Amino acid sequence: METWDAVRSRRNVRKYGPDPVPAEDLRRIAEAAWRAPSASNQQHWDFVIVTDREQLTELATVWPGAQHIATAAAAIALVLPDAPDERTRLTDRYDLGQATYAILVAAADLGIGTGHAGVGDQEKARKILGVPDGHTVAYLIGVGYPADRPLRPLRAPARRPFDEVVHYGTFSSRS
Amino acid sequence: METWDAVRSRRNVRKYGPDPVPAEDLRRIAEAAWRAPSASNQQHWDFVIVTDREQLTELATVWPGAQHIATAAAAIALVLPDAPDERTRLTDRYDLGQATYAILVAAADLGIGTGHAGVGDQEKARKILGVPDGHTVAYLIGVGYPADRPLRPLRAPARRPFDEVVHYGTFSSRS
Repeated sequence: METWDAVRSRRNVRKYGPDPVPAEDLRRIAEAAWRAPSASNQQHWDFVIVTDREQLTELATVWPGAQHIATAAAAIALVLPDAPDERTRLTDRYDLGQATYAILVAAADLGIGTGHAGVGDQEKARKILGVPDGHTVAYLIGVGYPADRPLRPLRAPARRPFDEVVHYGTFSSRS
Repeated sequence: METWDAVRSRRNVRKYGPDPVPAEDLRRIAEAAWRAPSASNQQHWDFVIVTDREQLTELATVWPGAQHIATAAAAIALVLPDAPDERTRLTDRYDLGQATYAILVAAADLGIGTGHAGVGDQEKARKILGVPDGHTVAYLIGVGYPADRPLRPLRAPARRPFDEVVHYGTFSSRS
């Protein structure tokens, strides 16, 4: 798919159809994250791909907003090492956001939907995924084909008005 | 360009050729950021596009690692409102990372290079951009055509080994 179509087609998908996502597609989606940039190329991240239904069902219980993970074809857990200071903590989150969008757009390119979830119960999430202490399961990304309509470029996504968000030259200007 | 080619072509570009980036391309790149997802769709972000040479030259002085901004065709400043608590602060950085990668991949799709810079002197950066108090200029993204080789898919980007970063099922597994 053309990049611009993938960027415009990506949307938050939390209801998934029954079809599995091919292993090679999951690998490509993970490769997009692996290729993402990070501060000083430090790559403070690990990605755990989950396709086992029992494990997905358990993961869906780590946060009220994670219920969609139970019916996803797969999930990708985004894991960070605990940061030594606030500066690193902020940078790591920023970098993880970059890797996340790489996942989202690489999936959209394949017609595959994605939906974020936070993690409330860290201990439980670490246990399900075998993540050692000293790490945080920062987010889960549900992955699967949309149950309803396929991904198509969105003409008018629900966003703040473009000219309130994007400025030219100075903050007070409107685009 | 195909999405997968844009994902693989994106690289950190800090030396730019003399050609300006067309206004419609800058708009599309900003639109990609505007479309990016954020926690509860809160969109805690503003983007300031800078193309004025004098302003770019000034911006290049806000951090030792921002020097490439002086010769970029444009810069996009990523502005966050100050967060009321640590949880929001972390989420805002994550979301800004998502918007950032949207910028990077939308630019790569057009053959346009990008290079991040941090901001050290917040007061100076805010003054140059007319950003009011209560906001942080979190990052600058330099934008321009690469001075050396054009963007092409990278076969072996410098990253931790793939099977150390991407796991299947549990953290300790190797892909």
